[in-house]
Amino acid sequence: MGFPVVGVVGGGQLARMMQPAAVALGVRLRVLADRADDSAAQVVPDTVVGDYRDLDVLRRFVDGVDVLTVEHEHVPTGHLSALEAEGVPVRPGPGALVHAQDKGVMREALSASGVPCPRWALLPGTYDDARAALEAFAGAGEWPVVVKTRRGGYDGKGVWVVGSLADAEDLLRSPALADPGLLVEEKVPFTRELAALVARSPHGQAVAYPVVETLQVDGVCREALAPARIDEEHAVEAQRAALRIAGDLGVTGVLAVELFDTPGGVLVNELAMRPHNSGHWSIDGAVTSQFENHLRAVLDLPLGSPAAKAPTLMVNVLGGAFEEMYSAYRHVMARDPGVKVHLYGKQVRPGRKVGHVNVLRAPGEALEDLYERGRHAAGYLRGDVVA
Amino acid sequence: MGFPVVGVVGGGQLARMMQPAAVALGVRLRVLADRADDSAAQVVPDTVVGDYRDLDVLRRFVDGVDVLTVEHEHVPTGHLSALEAEGVPVRPGPGALVHAQDKGVMREALSASGVPCPRWALLPGTYDDARAALEAFAGAGEWPVVVKTRRGGYDGKGVWVVGSLADAEDLLRSPALADPGLLVEEKVPFTRELAALVARSPHGQAVAYPVVETLQVDGVCREALAPARIDEEHAVEAQRAALRIAGDLGVTGVLAVELFDTPGGVLVNELAMRPHNSGHWSIDGAVTSQFENHLRAVLDLPLGSPAAKAPTLMVNVLGGAFEEMYSAYRHVMARDPGVKVHLYGKQVRPGRKVGHVNVLRAPGEALEDLYERGRHAAGYLRGDVVA
Repeated sequence: MGFPVVGVVGGGQLARMMQPAAVALGVRLRVLADRADDSAAQVVPDTVVGDYRDLDVLRRFVDGVDVLTVEHEHVPTGHLSALEAEGVPVRPGPGALVHAQDKGVMREALSASGVPCPRWALLPGTYDDARAALEAFAGAGEWPVVVKTRRGGYDGKGVWVVGSLADAEDLLRSPALADPGLLVEEKVPFTRELAALVARSPHGQAVAYPVVETLQVDGVCREALAPARIDEEHAVEAQRAALRIAGDLGVTGVLAVELFDTPGGVLVNELAMRPHNSGHWSIDGAVTSQFENHLRAVLDLPLGSPAAKAPTLMVNVLGGAFEEMYSAYRHVMARDPGVKVHLYGKQVRPGRKVGHVNVLRAPGEALEDLYERGRHAAGYLRGDVVA
Repeated sequence: MGFPVVGVVGGGQLARMMQPAAVALGVRLRVLADRADDSAAQVVPDTVVGDYRDLDVLRRFVDGVDVLTVEHEHVPTGHLSALEAEGVPVRPGPGALVHAQDKGVMREALSASGVPCPRWALLPGTYDDARAALEAFAGAGEWPVVVKTRRGGYDGKGVWVVGSLADAEDLLRSPALADPGLLVEEKVPFTRELAALVARSPHGQAVAYPVVETLQVDGVCREALAPARIDEEHAVEAQRAALRIAGDLGVTGVLAVELFDTPGGVLVNELAMRPHNSGHWSIDGAVTSQFENHLRAVLDLPLGSPAAKAPTLMVNVLGGAFEEMYSAYRHVMARDPGVKVHLYGKQVRPGRKVGHVNVLRAPGEALEDLYERGRHAAGYLRGDVVA
């Protein structure tokens, strides 16, 4: 086999950040983007513009590709199954990926595997039944509860905290109840939010990154600190849960498991089967970045060390007051020669993830100083911080 | 200013390795390559194929480019001066770059700056005068001496160790004596070969990387260890020499200074004004890679920290028995999850630099173990090591 071509469905920042890893390994990327100026399309010569919802587009795209992977969960499961049936290695495979696409399927599988989850229930597809089920679910615990769409939610979209039956009225009357369907979960009184990233290859080799703690604001990841400030025992629990899920679901590539840390242990919140925001610290902070290990995993190459070179803080750069962030580079870089800036070539829109910064903790540096550095840099790029 | 476009003359591995840094910073590269399948052309969408010796090609290439830089020293100085006169920011500028193009000009400038060099002399352009000058030069010291062409040498080409006047006969009779001209230098009895890398911006900010020790075989760099195992005093001497050269010559971008370490101090051997093989360790081992700092310097952005995250060994992968190195990945990666492989997408030819590996020293790891890891990985990729 010569140097392979990895086809990536999606032209966003996750595909973009695979390119540096591909450059080093001599692996070629081919990206299926929505638009010619997408984040990844700017940096990957072999970019095809097309609609991933069209099976014929996908079929043409995979011609000459050695393995197909995805940078988002929106590709129809049926299309991926069709390609797999036609002999294309699809990694993660559709049988695994469906668990990251459908939260109902995910909860059923995780419960069957014995992975600790919040209490949950599917809501029936008709108003009266759903209302009764919701009332019974809350009655067995307490209000508020969390209602989610089974498919299509991300970054806090498709998730509602519901304080009472009256609060749920609009949701229960919405078309989402029938399609894609809703589920209800207990609202976990967590102490921290965590993410456990693993990479797993078709041969079954897996590596686990240090568990990170994340700060989520309105359902959007703002910060990730690696390693998390938690008991070793809870960190191991989280890594074990992620490794078990990857194995039981047959995941190939990176699997990100978001968890709640509670005094009684960790509970799985969400899954993603691709490089994940909570793993961006690994570009500068780990021996092998999540993007390199994703490529190595989908190519069935032995995986690289996920060890941290140094404790690392990642802070997202969200779109804010500045439309043009390059002019902020001078100040951010002059103030702190240790800040690693990663911008995605995306148009700034309020709240949109347009980049992130990584800062590595120097020996003896106070954690609050690390946070000050990372938050200042991201805030200055965004336009919130002015000095 | 929006996100800038950096034009790079040359499509080799040095331009290729700028792409990951450009991806992170959101900076766009435009590469002038010799062929559409050049190393950098494979990974940079905005690649132009053309002859850098043609000024009109260069003029068309720089249209829309914010700053022009080079990944090799072969662009005619006059062309760069013409572009500069037409208003194109050329970094390093032709007035600096000529010192990396012409060893005679370099020696004159360094001697004028008081930078410690081996004893040297230009050889006159006619046989009788050159023979007399060579005899006088050796007579003031000892045979053997080192004869070099003023221009065009690299990787041991254009350099001869000459043991006697009789040995020099062919060289003194060669057309190179008149053009590009020859110079003679004492053969320094060094204890180690070193490289001191600095990056310098048009504003005059400069940063110095940890000094590395290099192993050269037949004039070709095989290995680089950062930091070098030398006295702190000699390391500081080497860094000071590099910073002084960068300042006195007005270098912008990365300057690599190759030096001899001797019991009496360091002596400057060669200069390169671009990212350099001796700095490849910085991709994985430094907070800011030489490629990122080269881009930041030519864009006049504040420079990033050159500090090492960990002591790092770089071993070059030279072309050898294997034509197809991808098949060796499985073994190399399985044996050592800490090896970082960098291949350049170049056709394997015996002795050609086609990649390198970096290995980071783990806390407490013996240096000999680090060397074993790096040499095994590079040797296995090359095809020399079979288990």
